Amino acid sequence: MARWEPGTRQRLQAAALELFATRGFEQVTAAEIAQAVGLTERTFFRNFGDKREVLFHGQDRFLQTFVDGVKEAPPEAAPLELIASALRAAAEIFPDELRPYSRMRQAVIDQNPALQERELHKLAGLAATLATAFRERGVAEPAATLAAQSAGTVFGIAFAQWIRDGESRPLAQIASDVLRELGTLTGAAAHRPLPM
Amino acid sequence: MARWEPGTRQRLQAAALELFATRGFEQVTAAEIAQAVGLTERTFFRNFGDKREVLFHGQDRFLQTFVDGVKEAPPEAAPLELIASALRAAAEIFPDELRPYSRMRQAVIDQNPALQERELHKLAGLAATLATAFRERGVAEPAATLAAQSAGTVFGIAFAQWIRDGESRPLAQIASDVLRELGTLTGAAAHRPLPM
Repeated sequence: MARWEPGTRQRLQAAALELFATRGFEQVTAAEIAQAVGLTERTFFRNFGDKREVLFHGQDRFLQTFVDGVKEAPPEAAPLELIASALRAAAEIFPDELRPYSRMRQAVIDQNPALQERELHKLAGLAATLATAFRERGVAEPAATLAAQSAGTVFGIAFAQWIRDGESRPLAQIASDVLRELGTLTGAAAHRPLPM
Repeated sequence: MARWEPGTRQRLQAAALELFATRGFEQVTAAEIAQAVGLTERTFFRNFGDKREVLFHGQDRFLQTFVDGVKEAPPEAAPLELIASALRAAAEIFPDELRPYSRMRQAVIDQNPALQERELHKLAGLAATLATAFRERGVAEPAATLAAQSAGTVFGIAFAQWIRDGESRPLAQIASDVLRELGTLTGAAAHRPLPM
């Protein structure tokens, strides 16, 4: 019963990424992915709904991690601290060991418009989910939506930096730097009216 | 030659929106839209590539308006002023007379996942276009991408507020308020390190 051994999903994911990266996402079948690690197509479909799922598996956990970060913040935390707490929690699920995997995954997505679309949706879903979490922490609108979208923006930019060639800083540190940069960029708007 | 009279496109757009809103986007054909204003299907397709185009016509102008706003800012303008200038320019193409049209358009889009997808792409395209405009004004990365995405976020939130029932403030004013709120929300990050 090899197909039930722990790590089957991870083995399928690793093999799939390798094949997608070398031959192109469209050119690889589920059967070939399974075959590459000595499993059957049927086992593949026990683990993933389709080929695309290999790249987007764990999305619920991804979203939930941000939400947990918001929930873990102390009761008196300001919205900015809620953003930082969400980013910190999210960064924890991307330890440095995952960087090569994340790089390869991104390269596959960059080559395929349909996958880019799905990724765009994932990030839009993140903003919507986070806005709800912020509102539940008592942040009013439009601050809740602003905070949620800003957290998504900071995460997206930090993540892109994290997987760049030659980058070695941990994701949490990059996210902290990008968040500070956002404060520097827009902070002045709080204090003086801009001619509009 | 009624089909070449000025305003043909606007008449088709108005009729299409009305039909989409009352009967649902999927249920309306190009021929029916044309017929509603006494024109032929052929005339419809001279003006719009397809039914969806009715809702997304003018997208290039929409993007260019933001870019023009960036270009019009004085040479010494800080990134935040470039954002404000882009928002101000964009707000100008949405005068109050357009509010009922924009409300109806949004209601149609909200009912259709494929249209929501297209709208999401439009906003992603805006961020990419604006990032280039900011870089051309000498803003370094990641500030350029942060500024571009923040401008998109502020515009999106302000626009959603502008078309809400009962809202009467002009778009430029709402955008200015939302931008100030963003400064209030994230400004503190510029001055003190957040534990990450």
